[in-house]
Amino acid sequence: MNANIYDVIHRRRDVRAQFTGEPIPDKSLRRVLTAAHAAPSVGLTQPWDFILVRDVALRREFFAHVQHERDCFAETLDPEAAQRFARIKIDGVLESSLSIVVTYDPDRGSPAVLGRHAIADAGLYSVCLAIQNLWLAATAEGLGVGWVSFYREPFVRDLLDIPERIRPVAWLCLGPVTHLETTPDLERHGWRQRRPLDAALHQDRWTAK
Amino acid sequence: MNANIYDVIHRRRDVRAQFTGEPIPDKSLRRVLTAAHAAPSVGLTQPWDFILVRDVALRREFFAHVQHERDCFAETLDPEAAQRFARIKIDGVLESSLSIVVTYDPDRGSPAVLGRHAIADAGLYSVCLAIQNLWLAATAEGLGVGWVSFYREPFVRDLLDIPERIRPVAWLCLGPVTHLETTPDLERHGWRQRRPLDAALHQDRWTAK
Repeated sequence: MNANIYDVIHRRRDVRAQFTGEPIPDKSLRRVLTAAHAAPSVGLTQPWDFILVRDVALRREFFAHVQHERDCFAETLDPEAAQRFARIKIDGVLESSLSIVVTYDPDRGSPAVLGRHAIADAGLYSVCLAIQNLWLAATAEGLGVGWVSFYREPFVRDLLDIPERIRPVAWLCLGPVTHLETTPDLERHGWRQRRPLDAALHQDRWTAK
Repeated sequence: MNANIYDVIHRRRDVRAQFTGEPIPDKSLRRVLTAAHAAPSVGLTQPWDFILVRDVALRREFFAHVQHERDCFAETLDPEAAQRFARIKIDGVLESSLSIVVTYDPDRGSPAVLGRHAIADAGLYSVCLAIQNLWLAATAEGLGVGWVSFYREPFVRDLLDIPERIRPVAWLCLGPVTHLETTPDLERHGWRQRRPLDAALHQDRWTAK
C-alpha cells in the first residue's frame, strides 16, 4: 500500500461503481475509524459518532429512498442536463461492503464549547474533518469511499433510530474496489469540469487576485 | 519529512503557541494548497476559495477582534472554567507566517448542484473536507496549522471585502513551528479529555453498541 499523504490525497475518489463487495479486514477498518476519530474538533468535543450499517434490509430501505430522491432531483433538471444525469451512478449502497453513517451531536461538551460561541456551525465543521480523515485512510487501505447525499435527514434518523437532537451528516459507502478512476466520475460524464487552483486564490482581500 | 498518512493524521495538532514566524517555502505552500483543492466536493462544485492574508495591518485588526470575542466567551463561563480558560492561548494570528481564510460560495455550480437538492449544507461540508486536506498536507510539510474560531463572520467579511453571498468558513494560521505537541492543548490544560473511539461506535442502529 502506498500511504504517502500526497499520493493518497490525489488518488482518492468518490466511488460509486467500482465496489467488489468483498469484506473489509477488521484491522483495516479499525485503522480507518481510528484515523477519523483523530480529527481536530472545536473545543475538543469530538462531536461525531459512527454507525456501521451492515444489515442488508436497512441498506435496501435506504437505497429505495435514494432512488426516490434521485428522481426528485432529475425532475428539476432541463432535458439536456437530465440526459447527462441519467448516465451517472450516484451510490454504491448495495454493492459496497459497509455503510458508515456519520452523525453530529451538538450537545457534546455543551454549554460552554470553546470556540463555538460565535460560530454555531463549528461543531458540524469538526464532523466533516473526521470524514475526510476517514476517506483518506480508507484510500490508503485500498478501499473506496462514496458519499451518498441523495437523502432526507429525517428519513435516515428514523431508519437508524437516531435521536432527534443528533444530526446525520453523511452516509458513506465503504469497501474494496476493483480500481480508483483517474478522473472524477462527474468530469468523465461531462457533468462538470474541475477549476484551476489559481482561480480559487486571492491575496489579502477577496478582490485581489 | 515523514509523509505516511497515518503518521501525519496522528501527529497533526491545532497549533497556537509554537509558530516561529519563519517564511513558508513557496513550493511547500503550493503543495498544501493543491492538496486542499483536490478535496471531494458535492457535484464537483469545488465551492471553496483561499484568501492568503499576509498584510500585517489586516492581521492586527483581526487579532483585536479575536481578543474581544475571547472576552465575550470568558464572560459566559463559571469562575472555575474561566480560570482554566485564562491559561489557554486561542490563536497564533500574529506569530504565524500566514493566515489563510477559507470561504464557501453557495452559487458555484448552481442552480442544479448534483447532490445538494436534499441537503443544503452539503456545499459547506465540501469546504471542510478541503480544510482537512490542507491541514494534513501542512503537517506533512512540517508546518503547523491553527484554526481560529473566535470571530464573527460579518467582521471577517468586511475586513477582507468578501461579498455578501460568500461565507467565511475558517481563519487558519499557518507556518513553521518549533514542534508539535503530543497531547492536544485543551487536554494538556485540563479543559477536556478525549473520548475513547469505542464510545463513538454503533452497530446498525444508534441504540446498538
